[in-house]
Amino acid sequence: MKIGIIGGTGDIGEGMALRLSPLFEVIVGSRNSEKAIETSVCCSDTLHSRNVKCSCSGTTNADAVLNADVIILAVPWKNLTETVRSLPDFGDKIVVSPVNPMEKRDHFVFVPPDEGSVALYLKRILPPEARLVVAFNTIAANRWKAIDEELRYSVPVCGDDLEAKSIVSDIVNSTSALKAYDAGPLAASCMVESLTPLLLNIARYNKMRDVGLRFV
Amino acid sequence: MKIGIIGGTGDIGEGMALRLSPLFEVIVGSRNSEKAIETSVCCSDTLHSRNVKCSCSGTTNADAVLNADVIILAVPWKNLTETVRSLPDFGDKIVVSPVNPMEKRDHFVFVPPDEGSVALYLKRILPPEARLVVAFNTIAANRWKAIDEELRYSVPVCGDDLEAKSIVSDIVNSTSALKAYDAGPLAASCMVESLTPLLLNIARYNKMRDVGLRFV
Repeated sequence: MKIGIIGGTGDIGEGMALRLSPLFEVIVGSRNSEKAIETSVCCSDTLHSRNVKCSCSGTTNADAVLNADVIILAVPWKNLTETVRSLPDFGDKIVVSPVNPMEKRDHFVFVPPDEGSVALYLKRILPPEARLVVAFNTIAANRWKAIDEELRYSVPVCGDDLEAKSIVSDIVNSTSALKAYDAGPLAASCMVESLTPLLLNIARYNKMRDVGLRFV
Repeated sequence: MKIGIIGGTGDIGEGMALRLSPLFEVIVGSRNSEKAIETSVCCSDTLHSRNVKCSCSGTTNADAVLNADVIILAVPWKNLTETVRSLPDFGDKIVVSPVNPMEKRDHFVFVPPDEGSVALYLKRILPPEARLVVAFNTIAANRWKAIDEELRYSVPVCGDDLEAKSIVSDIVNSTSALKAYDAGPLAASCMVESLTPLLLNIARYNKMRDVGLRFV
């Protein structure tokens, strides 16, 4: 399976490439294809130096969409609309949103769009064939990148297309020690997207780093 | 310290009495004082049969407020306004809200009041002296009551009064294996109150029971 990471040269995207490219064909996308190639080479070098085989290439965001089966929108909320508008038609590909609508004020605040969540906003602006799934919202960039450590977190997954949700859950469950949990339809996604500002507040007020969560 | 549990004959209230009365003087409150006395006797009997010493009495909700230092509003959201209006002035006592604004539709939905959270609603309707703290939102009634098992959960705690937040965090940390985490001011409480409908969805869609959470 080919996984395209839009915004793949960002902090989260880089970490995702490191974790997913030993398992899947990863296509790192970026507005700047040279940066994407640089990230993909760096990812491959890091893994090869640990004797880990991987498949990682770099290209434009648009080519990543065209060539991948599953597209992860590893883009901050503030850039999401512009980025999505710059991309070719997703067709009926699986689109994964790990995007959290939040702002940093004196604490982190959950600030969803009028639709109630980023996922419901995407559902409105994407063509109806696109198979949207919410996943990977709560894993900190530093944890993605710390590839010598297992990711022992729970990952809530939302979606209306049950097959797409199942495929994405399989990707989650293949990745390190992550465990996917069905969190219901896209209509329930606001409760998933508000986890990350909560975790950032927990980190901040308790002097912790990269807090994640586990359902028990 | 005297802890009054308003709605103490409900599922959550009963479980809280069982867990807290070995540690604190618990006053179970109810609209119906006879029911409150019955619950308190049942709680004491259950603990005494395990050779656990406890302090648990039952009375009206109003007397529980008057006699306690810390008041826990163990009341469902739909009854909260009516219950709070029926109570005497809290003065500058500590008031703990574990209340989550949610509805069961085809999935559990977070439906906060216009203020953004139950805590912010309470802040508006309570006298300014009341020292409001959000805590204990995510622990299922069955887990409270299963007193032969430890509660190994994380408990996010919100509040604007730092001393009150610290006192409530100490109560949390004294209770079984619960661990309190500062989740910021009351303005950040919507992210705590939306956890419970998420956990109920996780339980429902993954065929689990009484799902809790841990920050890791």
